[in-house]
Amino acid sequence: MTSSAQPAPAAGPVVGLDLGGTKIAAALLAADGTVLARHSRPTPAQEGAAAVLDALAAAAAEVDPTHGASVLGIAAAGVIDPRTGMVTSATDSIRGWAGTPLGVGLANRTGYAVACDNDVRATAGPELAALNARTAGHGSLLFAAIGTGVGGAVAADGRMLHGSAGIAGHLGHVPSPEAAGLPCTCGATGHLEVIASGPGIAAHYARLTGAPVDRLETVAARAAEGDAHAVTAITTGAAAAGHVLGGLANAFGPDRVVIGGGVPRIGALYADALRAAFAAELMGPLRGLVPQAPLLGHDAAVLGAASLTTTLPLHHPGALR
Amino acid sequence: MTSSAQPAPAAGPVVGLDLGGTKIAAALLAADGTVLARHSRPTPAQEGAAAVLDALAAAAAEVDPTHGASVLGIAAAGVIDPRTGMVTSATDSIRGWAGTPLGVGLANRTGYAVACDNDVRATAGPELAALNARTAGHGSLLFAAIGTGVGGAVAADGRMLHGSAGIAGHLGHVPSPEAAGLPCTCGATGHLEVIASGPGIAAHYARLTGAPVDRLETVAARAAEGDAHAVTAITTGAAAAGHVLGGLANAFGPDRVVIGGGVPRIGALYADALRAAFAAELMGPLRGLVPQAPLLGHDAAVLGAASLTTTLPLHHPGALR
Repeated sequence: MTSSAQPAPAAGPVVGLDLGGTKIAAALLAADGTVLARHSRPTPAQEGAAAVLDALAAAAAEVDPTHGASVLGIAAAGVIDPRTGMVTSATDSIRGWAGTPLGVGLANRTGYAVACDNDVRATAGPELAALNARTAGHGSLLFAAIGTGVGGAVAADGRMLHGSAGIAGHLGHVPSPEAAGLPCTCGATGHLEVIASGPGIAAHYARLTGAPVDRLETVAARAAEGDAHAVTAITTGAAAAGHVLGGLANAFGPDRVVIGGGVPRIGALYADALRAAFAAELMGPLRGLVPQAPLLGHDAAVLGAASLTTTLPLHHPGALR
Repeated sequence: MTSSAQPAPAAGPVVGLDLGGTKIAAALLAADGTVLARHSRPTPAQEGAAAVLDALAAAAAEVDPTHGASVLGIAAAGVIDPRTGMVTSATDSIRGWAGTPLGVGLANRTGYAVACDNDVRATAGPELAALNARTAGHGSLLFAAIGTGVGGAVAADGRMLHGSAGIAGHLGHVPSPEAAGLPCTCGATGHLEVIASGPGIAAHYARLTGAPVDRLETVAARAAEGDAHAVTAITTGAAAAGHVLGGLANAFGPDRVVIGGGVPRIGALYADALRAAFAAELMGPLRGLVPQAPLLGHDAAVLGAASLTTTLPLHHPGALR
């Protein structure tokens, strides 16, 4: 830890915030996990980082107007380093987000002690807690979030991994044979995200048919009607994810593999193809490992954000470094 | 830990053993790391697990005839679970090796308290110790061993990962676009090991030319003479390794990446291609990360084996479970 602030369990209520590219979700949670208040508002993504921090502070004030909490956890888009509290890097879905001092910036605006991490690790936190409860604290977890991008979180021997600059868990930026030659959002070529994300599946369908589609749901509807190209685009994306995650399972040896995010919700065609491709990769000792659906639903990120305050360094109001 | 035995630093000398498919290496190390005695003998690989355990015990007796040491560390081929001391699975390079109670079996034969792990993790141990010394104990390491197979070791936040059944670090069994469609030793298809191991490079050369070669060194010599197919086989294997390791770096966020094993020693043609492919995969926060050669030479496994006794559970003489 480079921060002197160490985690401490919260006795009182906790504020949880989930910052996405389009929406901020906030909740006030009692110490026992009960949700006491909720609020959501749009992310002022094009107004810059200061406006986004202001909006986060306003969302916190909505759920905790009397300032009954003393700690706040935030799950944010981008690559976040929980030790420094900085946004290490980010796409332009929030303008000027890379380089933002998220921890101290939000502590200064709210007076709370702030724990921060990226949204996928926050979402995976309660999954790890549940796994640790049945592995004497030694759980190893591979958590993939397949949606508009492909992200993830990895925990080993009971602890969430952050890695250099907080980058651990970028499962979408691993080479995928199915994506060979296709340009990735990160600037490289042939990464899983290009073929397995929602936009990646839609783009693959467009390549197969010559007809652009704007949404994954359109492809899913056509597949349900028997459109062979739509079936191919979906099963190719699912198989690509299954192959890469199976290979990562060989490299890590997780006790549990979870597939979250919006894409798996399109149904059995996707889930079956992913599961078969995953199983085909596994080395002997891992056979029988089957990807699972997440334990929590759409609340997972904001609930996970609140629980960050018990596992990560807290950033206090103070000078920006 | 499922074992009740906990690691404790050794004050006196330590026996280190390295078990490979063809050779057993043994050393007696003083507490300060000085090598006091060495011995090696062939592995009786076709005589079964009991004969191999007997040979290991005999090798230990050669380097420590007065039984001045009380602890022994062994680095062994196969998938090893250090907590249970069992060989979880193994290829048939040592007959009947899978299922062998390595820890207790060797403790019973020698009277030493025994720590065991697979050879690659043992080799990577001193690398991690050096990295931890300059990261306040929070080093994250990606260590690949590219030789007759492709293995590896992964450490995160200062600790070597073992994963479910001790399988963490099997970096050779991750999908590689360059290996698409080729059968792997593990039973799956398209894994890195098929195209990037020494035999994999030789087999690729044979596919390109129709002329079988028995050794990687033959391919390397032909590449040095300007044989274009030999150059292709070597650079394809190197690039495949670089791409997969770059993707794994994105997934893990290591502070340091080390490429060990015999294949990288064939020279600059290999190393340059690997380095370029690795760099092409990296996400922004990891740019500048460059694969390094190992700190230690051919002694690494036996030295690493001895140091296992300070970091892993010790198995004492007793009943086989």
